[in-house]
Amino acid sequence: MPRFAWRRDRGTVMFVNKRDVQIQWGDCDPANIVYYPRYFAMFDDSTSIMFEAAGFSKQDIVYKYGLVGIPMVDTRAKFHIPSTHGDWIRIESRVESFKRSSFEVLHNVFKGDRLAIEAWETRVLVGRHPDDPDKLKSAPMPPEIIERFMRG
Amino acid sequence: MPRFAWRRDRGTVMFVNKRDVQIQWGDCDPANIVYYPRYFAMFDDSTSIMFEAAGFSKQDIVYKYGLVGIPMVDTRAKFHIPSTHGDWIRIESRVESFKRSSFEVLHNVFKGDRLAIEAWETRVLVGRHPDDPDKLKSAPMPPEIIERFMRG
Amino acid sequence: MPRFAWRRDRGTVMFVNKRDVQIQWGDCDPANIVYYPRYFAMFDDSTSIMFEAAGFSKQDIVYKYGLVGIPMVDTRAKFHIPSTHGDWIRIESRVESFKRSSFEVLHNVFKGDRLAIEAWETRVLVGRHPDDPDKLKSAPMPPEIIERFMRG
Amino acid sequence: MPRFAWRRDRGTVMFVNKRDVQIQWGDCDPANIVYYPRYFAMFDDSTSIMFEAAGFSKQDIVYKYGLVGIPMVDTRAKFHIPSTHGDWIRIESRVESFKRSSFEVLHNVFKGDRLAIEAWETRVLVGRHPDDPDKLKSAPMPPEIIERFMRG
Repeated sequence: MPRFAWRRDRGTVMFVNKRDVQIQWGDCDPANIVYYPRYFAMFDDSTSIMFEAAGFSKQDIVYKYGLVGIPMVDTRAKFHIPSTHGDWIRIESRVESFKRSSFEVLHNVFKGDRLAIEAWETRVLVGRHPDDPDKLKSAPMPPEIIERFMRG
Repeated sequence: MPRFAWRRDRGTVMFVNKRDVQIQWGDCDPANIVYYPRYFAMFDDSTSIMFEAAGFSKQDIVYKYGLVGIPMVDTRAKFHIPSTHGDWIRIESRVESFKRSSFEVLHNVFKGDRLAIEAWETRVLVGRHPDDPDKLKSAPMPPEIIERFMRG
Repeated sequence: MPRFAWRRDRGTVMFVNKRDVQIQWGDCDPANIVYYPRYFAMFDDSTSIMFEAAGFSKQDIVYKYGLVGIPMVDTRAKFHIPSTHGDWIRIESRVESFKRSSFEVLHNVFKGDRLAIEAWETRVLVGRHPDDPDKLKSAPMPPEIIERFMRG
Repeated sequence: MPRFAWRRDRGTVMFVNKRDVQIQWGDCDPANIVYYPRYFAMFDDSTSIMFEAAGFSKQDIVYKYGLVGIPMVDTRAKFHIPSTHGDWIRIESRVESFKRSSFEVLHNVFKGDRLAIEAWETRVLVGRHPDDPDKLKSAPMPPEIIERFMRG
């Protein structure tokens, strides 16, 4: 189901992960269309699955680099075409850019060949604060992750 | 719990609804902070509760105006301060503007007196398409709703 | 991914649908294990997917027989082994029995070859009440659905 | 909103916590009734809120006794009367019994004065296994919690 590839785009090679998701009954609201917070859960899953497809599963990242998580700091979604239960959508996800401890992901959702949703997210890697384990502190982006996504 | 008031802001009187929400265990992820799609569910609830506080419950709006729902077309959230289970947050919601069949809502989330999250949403009123009841069609914003929110 | 088969069990041929599900970050709580209400959502999906695999998608059933839904009237789950994000589980679902307007489903969840969860559900088919469209009324189980599941 | 009291029942004094919950749009499915996994989330919240009302918030319990969580091992719910968005339900929760490291909770949900849902849950206190911090191990029920709930 997940399909992973590098794609050349505006001079750079981009890493794109595609997956097909079937909308379920419980994803939908009384208007019989997807309750939009469910899309954000699908996008969160999609980012994890993209990293796993690239060889960096979330559980590995968290253990290996001593992180607490990869929380969202800014996200936006524009909904163009609604979907209902039984529908299949294709979510295409890619990292748009990396910074010192944050990165940007773009999700394009297609219904057939029409663009149904566009979503952007900025996430940050965080670990425990060395002086206070109850506090979170941003952690640097591991170079091997950047290299893996940005090769070419 | 919900507290409702008109507030003068930049020359206009704005309608603001405040409610206190306690973060629950199931709202949080393995990093022990709120799983961000849960915030969007809280914001969706907050918009409904704001309308109900203004005298227009969602169930009434849907019945009275023959609508199917008030779906999201564009939403964004910036997360400044994380919260965990047991924490109380205060969500302040208001309509920023009305257009023919859409409106914008702003949610400011406070943790104590610090701004924890800012969220924007653009929603549209939709009914069944007269020619095809399986399709949705935007519906005009009822003037009495606009008047109620924009009085003063 | 979904694998569908009839299986002989205690003299009857049973219809079993299997699907593999990867636990995601947002399925888990601060204890780093699946937040149990998420399992019920997975089971609801599993029942829908089993019906679709049998040739009766939920959207078709709802349209064809004029139903409103197939709500839960009684459900139980016993959790033996916890799972965390990244884990794969296999959900095996089957209809245990049909009655006039209700049926029972059993979900067995396996982690590797160990039984991780057992869940039972009793559901009922409901349509709009002919005298009051705001009320629900049980609807008879279509014979072709029973035949499809209980052949042999 | 939460109302807490000891209630004499069959010779014992029982601790009962009541809270009123308004069903929201996003709690409901295309049949316009509550999507049942959402009830389990409400019950999980209700157990936490009952403990907090008794003076033992989940975050305190987890920190003070070095626990990881209070996971579900067995739960059942019978749904008698459906609810839709805008409806108010009253959830009455109480501990039915304590064992060495587990306890049982009963939730009765009322819609007006009619019993809408009955739910049972058996939970266990768990901490990290001393020999393997990746594994969970049941922890004894603190006597002061039992005393607080079972006084009289």
